[in-house]
Amino acid sequence: MLNQAKIESLAADLRQREIDAFLIGTSSDLEYVSGLAMHECERFKGLFVKADGGTFCIVPHLYLQEFRSAMPEGTPLYIWEDQDWFYSALARAFEEQGIPSGARLAVNDAVRAVDAIEIAERQDVSLVNGWHLLDGMRAHKNADEIVAMAEAGRIADEALTDLLPFIRPGRTEKQIKTRLLELLEAKGAEGLSFPPIVARGANAAMPHYNREDGVVQDHDTVLIDYGCRHRGYCSDTTRTLFVGEPTEEEKRLYEIVRLSQAAGEAAVRPGRPAQEIDRTARKVIEEAGYGSYFNNRLGHGIGLAVHETPYIMEGNSEPLEVGMAFSIEPGIYIPEKIGIRIENVVVVTEKGCRSMSRFPREIVNVLDYD
Amino acid sequence: MLNQAKIESLAADLRQREIDAFLIGTSSDLEYVSGLAMHECERFKGLFVKADGGTFCIVPHLYLQEFRSAMPEGTPLYIWEDQDWFYSALARAFEEQGIPSGARLAVNDAVRAVDAIEIAERQDVSLVNGWHLLDGMRAHKNADEIVAMAEAGRIADEALTDLLPFIRPGRTEKQIKTRLLELLEAKGAEGLSFPPIVARGANAAMPHYNREDGVVQDHDTVLIDYGCRHRGYCSDTTRTLFVGEPTEEEKRLYEIVRLSQAAGEAAVRPGRPAQEIDRTARKVIEEAGYGSYFNNRLGHGIGLAVHETPYIMEGNSEPLEVGMAFSIEPGIYIPEKIGIRIENVVVVTEKGCRSMSRFPREIVNVLDYD
Repeated sequence: MLNQAKIESLAADLRQREIDAFLIGTSSDLEYVSGLAMHECERFKGLFVKADGGTFCIVPHLYLQEFRSAMPEGTPLYIWEDQDWFYSALARAFEEQGIPSGARLAVNDAVRAVDAIEIAERQDVSLVNGWHLLDGMRAHKNADEIVAMAEAGRIADEALTDLLPFIRPGRTEKQIKTRLLELLEAKGAEGLSFPPIVARGANAAMPHYNREDGVVQDHDTVLIDYGCRHRGYCSDTTRTLFVGEPTEEEKRLYEIVRLSQAAGEAAVRPGRPAQEIDRTARKVIEEAGYGSYFNNRLGHGIGLAVHETPYIMEGNSEPLEVGMAFSIEPGIYIPEKIGIRIENVVVVTEKGCRSMSRFPREIVNVLDYD
Repeated sequence: MLNQAKIESLAADLRQREIDAFLIGTSSDLEYVSGLAMHECERFKGLFVKADGGTFCIVPHLYLQEFRSAMPEGTPLYIWEDQDWFYSALARAFEEQGIPSGARLAVNDAVRAVDAIEIAERQDVSLVNGWHLLDGMRAHKNADEIVAMAEAGRIADEALTDLLPFIRPGRTEKQIKTRLLELLEAKGAEGLSFPPIVARGANAAMPHYNREDGVVQDHDTVLIDYGCRHRGYCSDTTRTLFVGEPTEEEKRLYEIVRLSQAAGEAAVRPGRPAQEIDRTARKVIEEAGYGSYFNNRLGHGIGLAVHETPYIMEGNSEPLEVGMAFSIEPGIYIPEKIGIRIENVVVVTEKGCRSMSRFPREIVNVLDYD
């Protein structure tokens, strides 16, 4: 149900920024303010929040029941039919709701450019990037949210532990992925944070590898990056596992990444700029001579969305605050050769941080598990 | 790999529409022209096609290998690092590629409004809705594409057939969904068209129901709307199954929907306006007195995307052409009571159409299967 306190706080922010209305497309922003989690489709829909705190929705007929059940009684719902598309419902809504010509309309990151272009042309409003308007609120997880994230992390840990005996030479990445999904389901996951990545050997050198035809070899590595949800909140964990005894070189590379990840976690403090955590973890990899093989940011915020504020990277000097949740995920990616990444999600506490995963970060040889 | 013939045809269309460049975000459009199928993430990336047929890409470092392997050698790739965001890569690209101030830049439906707003503010371009620029090409499936869709349909049929004995009183919607996913996987599906809907009894009255806690009762109905992929191409099928003998009223409602769906398929001809098919199928439901319980369009085009041109609905007077593929999915949705839908995907042939599903459309009592 729409959370009136969040809407009022948002409206105050809109007034301060001289924004007349904010269009929240169906996304984790909408889930955050209303509990309404909807799958994406090309039919335009969303919640408008006005600077005076008033709200209204534009809704395809098909989704009327979902919006009705999430919005307080009396919320104006402007319904459109498939044969009309949404433009006339939009015009009616803007007129009845007193959105003036020339208004500044912010849109969130779930709104498509093709829809925003049509809105701006038809309603004479100027568009404002409203991607980060809810970030301030969303970035501070309360106790309920942290409990949900810890539970998602616990489910994920259990699934990965049970997966170890299944990872054997001859298995395809796809088979391992399927088994992981079954285990997550069996452990009580309510859904996925994102489609998991299972990447053997050199395939893991692509950090967002999305194929699945690789076959695990003798003396291979298997990188698993996966997450599940509990009450909408995401887990996100990566481990790079060994199939057999690692070589000396593999041990050395792994140890660099492990120390980098641990240094990142140890550096987290309220008040410290986000980029400091990135620098601390990156330095370990750079000093070992592999800086050019770690080309992405150290981490991303996480909550109802798997990527959200705060981003842990160079250039983000915002200070960390208690209740912020983000990943710490350094890696070494050597094209055509190997990819190693270790990732935990942590929540900032008064004195440092707490990891949402307890799965060991040390070298794990899956052949030791059966 | 980027298909040069498609790019040239697209560029000719851009010149005719006086569009200077077309930004194709990562989506089925990009897969259609380049084979590159990427999962969505908030990092800006895409292929720009200029009116002169030239191409360049803006790519986060993280996705460099994927873009390199999909683009012809020599394609300029403007790479950006996480700590910079994409704005400076964009400025460099626009300058080097000669995109003039005041240019008309079309964007496709995968581009986010928040990114388009930044592009328009920083580069002084005017945005054009380019959602449908590739529709003409994509709507005409060639033999290869039709074979892929038929194969996806065959896999889907087999999975549903094997699912029947599993649908029993006491099963949750979630259990049935999980079993369906396992069967699709086992039959060789390469992925899903969309997360399946399994909705019992009154839950099916919400056409896009997305919960899964319903429990199948004695003498229940179970609506299953699902699809899988083969070589990227989608299937999409709905059947409403009976658990036990249907009542006379259920039989009557089902028969109305079945006749409506069959009438829709029988009405398909090259040259006939899309809306005619909607009218023909809808008339059957209206004349039976249930018109107000069928509130959405009859169907949607399908291919690499599960929803694409042509939309089969009132207001679309475009004539159907050989090779077009779309769903025909009438339904009767009585809130709090029952939902019945029958859906096949068909491809337009010289003389009519061919269904991608051969699963019976007649009443199926799952208790007859074990």
